[in-house]
Amino acid sequence: MTNDPSRLLIVASNRGPVSYRHAEDGSLSANRGGGGMVSGLTSGLAAVAADGGTLWLCAALSEADREVARRPDRAPSSPGEVPVRMLDIPADVFDAAYNGIANSLLWFVHHLLFDTPNQPRFDMAFRADWAAYVAYNETFAAALAQECASGTRVLIQDYHLSLAPRMLRDRYPAARIAHFEHTPWAPPEYFRLLPDDVAIAILDGMLGADHAGFLAWRWADAFLDCCEAVLGAEVTRTRPGAGRVTHRGHVTEVAVHPLGVDAEELRARGRQADVLSSASALREIARGRQLIVRVDRTELSKNIVRGMAAYRELLVTRPEWRGRVTHLAFAYPSRSGLTEYQAYTARVHELAAEINAEFGTPDWEPLILDVKDDYPRSLAACGLADVLLVNPIRDGMNLVAEEGPILSEGGCALVLSREAGAAALIGEAALLVNPYDVSATANALHAGLIMPAAERQRRSATIASVAAARAPRRWLAEQVEALG
Amino acid sequence: MTNDPSRLLIVASNRGPVSYRHAEDGSLSANRGGGGMVSGLTSGLAAVAADGGTLWLCAALSEADREVARRPDRAPSSPGEVPVRMLDIPADVFDAAYNGIANSLLWFVHHLLFDTPNQPRFDMAFRADWAAYVAYNETFAAALAQECASGTRVLIQDYHLSLAPRMLRDRYPAARIAHFEHTPWAPPEYFRLLPDDVAIAILDGMLGADHAGFLAWRWADAFLDCCEAVLGAEVTRTRPGAGRVTHRGHVTEVAVHPLGVDAEELRARGRQADVLSSASALREIARGRQLIVRVDRTELSKNIVRGMAAYRELLVTRPEWRGRVTHLAFAYPSRSGLTEYQAYTARVHELAAEINAEFGTPDWEPLILDVKDDYPRSLAACGLADVLLVNPIRDGMNLVAEEGPILSEGGCALVLSREAGAAALIGEAALLVNPYDVSATANALHAGLIMPAAERQRRSATIASVAAARAPRRWLAEQVEALG
Repeated sequence: MTNDPSRLLIVASNRGPVSYRHAEDGSLSANRGGGGMVSGLTSGLAAVAADGGTLWLCAALSEADREVARRPDRAPSSPGEVPVRMLDIPADVFDAAYNGIANSLLWFVHHLLFDTPNQPRFDMAFRADWAAYVAYNETFAAALAQECASGTRVLIQDYHLSLAPRMLRDRYPAARIAHFEHTPWAPPEYFRLLPDDVAIAILDGMLGADHAGFLAWRWADAFLDCCEAVLGAEVTRTRPGAGRVTHRGHVTEVAVHPLGVDAEELRARGRQADVLSSASALREIARGRQLIVRVDRTELSKNIVRGMAAYRELLVTRPEWRGRVTHLAFAYPSRSGLTEYQAYTARVHELAAEINAEFGTPDWEPLILDVKDDYPRSLAACGLADVLLVNPIRDGMNLVAEEGPILSEGGCALVLSREAGAAALIGEAALLVNPYDVSATANALHAGLIMPAAERQRRSATIASVAAARAPRRWLAEQVEALG
Repeated sequence: MTNDPSRLLIVASNRGPVSYRHAEDGSLSANRGGGGMVSGLTSGLAAVAADGGTLWLCAALSEADREVARRPDRAPSSPGEVPVRMLDIPADVFDAAYNGIANSLLWFVHHLLFDTPNQPRFDMAFRADWAAYVAYNETFAAALAQECASGTRVLIQDYHLSLAPRMLRDRYPAARIAHFEHTPWAPPEYFRLLPDDVAIAILDGMLGADHAGFLAWRWADAFLDCCEAVLGAEVTRTRPGAGRVTHRGHVTEVAVHPLGVDAEELRARGRQADVLSSASALREIARGRQLIVRVDRTELSKNIVRGMAAYRELLVTRPEWRGRVTHLAFAYPSRSGLTEYQAYTARVHELAAEINAEFGTPDWEPLILDVKDDYPRSLAACGLADVLLVNPIRDGMNLVAEEGPILSEGGCALVLSREAGAAALIGEAALLVNPYDVSATANALHAGLIMPAAERQRRSATIASVAAARAPRRWLAEQVEALG
């Protein structure tokens, strides 16, 4: 598919669009699909006409992936699919880079998640993890440099690969590099908890790119603040979320590219039989009651416990809702290897049980917590929600906030954390809340429940339309265009 | 003592310069003294010639204090002492305002201490505490308004009393009010975790003052940032840490007044018999080994656990120090009613025991942890320290960092967190470290231990001299002067 190498478009990300597993007969079977970022990129790439072809570099995540990665030929791809090159990174290096640094450190920094008196602790063990993160990034940079020809455009994704832009620039100076950060960005006063050399390496690494993209102006501005405060780089600001950083003689453009949803594709998926059958089952459960829905991974940043506490406060302070509303909380397992996540998941279960014990009646289960990841059911729940609760303490974007209104049948009220990047896109069409404020969240749930149907519909339609206008193809096209 | 009421100078703070207890015969006995802020204010007030006299308003902290507060006459004072008026605040209101809001919320916000996925949680219980904090501030404002005459200058202290300046302004518009914040200040991205009305009330409350003082430019700048981001107030910046905020038609000057130490007084105290005898006992323990000393309350922000982890890393990575150094860690009880503090104290004890079990020999106890608050012994330890470790994750100022070098006999190396306000005053005369970076702290301890005596002495003398130049009388005089 690679015709004109000077027009080649390469995406690099930790997780790719395909993964492999060993079938029972020992053969390898491929599985397409993935989370929000991967599906956004896939859908965006399919729409961007790259006459030089496209290529996706990703890490091998399993032993089966590694087996594919070690083959001399590229991972097999069907017609119309993006060719994938998987990188064979040793399991221990991958684990230290991915769990030790990306998910336990950088994710925590940008989401302000640390229990600071106790964590993080940068000691000898940290240095080993950091060396693995450097090696992981170098593996990507080396592979990217191999693929680059003059004019090749490279889109490097997220906090796993913050060093790769600089490393690629050093190996292949003519590369046209964009980095996109899918998380929030920490303010300098928090970012500086990183060891100095690490803080500098991350900023300097990203500034190896020609273009650095963020999901919301707050995150882009925080990045510019860090470049000034930590690197002492020369920063020119053109408007909120946009500017230029000059560092080591190289200029990086900083810009915001909010990520929306392909509404047509999502609605089509929502009309498939598995979703419709889930919807019937959920209607059976609701039995005419209003539904407050949430759909999240059980991620520390998603704020499920405070969301449930708000629901409890609603039932305490406005007893008229008892028996008239059901809270469907779909909270799928996430990063269950990390102890903080195990403890948090336990608290989610405890609080759900407490609320049901406190308010439940033989006829009414106030809160239905389900942790089984069931995509069709999630879509069905979004379609039926009267109130959709999306209350992260901090979130790069949050696509559920956009998907819910798109899928909604009769219109839903969206209770949305102002600390989600999506809040900048959606604005006052949602009921915006401070995610730490349980009482304010309870009040917003009430406001959503009593909202007249016409207003729900109007707000929902507004949100669906701003989200649809930012479909992944536009998001990706903007970045490609920014590279010239 | 109040001669000319228009020249009266009033100090208002939670804790006053005197407290009472019931003696065995039921009579009340007074006890003068207190922590860093109180002794700074006492020493400062004694030096500021207020021809209209001075008055100190504080909260009654105990039942004995309340008994005194209820008497019609002012708290008795000896000649030369500041007259004190104690405010009789009901115990439950005091507890909710002091523990519930000031120490569990505002302290945590400004020191970035929250385990954000779990705390804070602003629910109905919080609202009751907040109402108590408002009432506590109103009690002060009402009492201050009673004492004010035209021209009276009022110095309101710290985060316990952030609403009082505005409340006093409303009651007595002609008052000349300064507020001084003894903590750090949170950046807007963290400050905004407060409920909106609370965040606004705190900033607006402080902006009732004519002058808002901070200990370091970073805290003053963060306050200005919050005034802009949260209130949308008009902010004019004149230089780092200084500016003007115009809000609701009133102008507040913002400035930095670093707090130092009365070196002569401290050195005189250090020559008293109890200190000398403690010093002998400590020399006995050290038996010629070098001493790494820390003296702190067991406060979450003081970072004792990471400090001990750094000491352990020193012993692991540089085994030549085993048997040649002793770490004296004096960690006095603090806020032991709060569960986070109990858990933290337990971790301090566990880690100390682990280090002694790992490295101790019959001849050598590597780490001596003592939690008994013994002021003469603290002074003696500072005097003997080869290396003084002051590594808070965030600290308004930190006077130990200044007192140590002043008390040092032969000069000590100061390993100082760059996140302490004192770092702005002391600068490169200390060995500055990132307090989250255990390895960097271990390296700094090593650098301190091997530092030539002449260099230790030179650096110590520099620190002592900058600290002495900022003695409390100057700190206070600047604020009084700023009120005109």
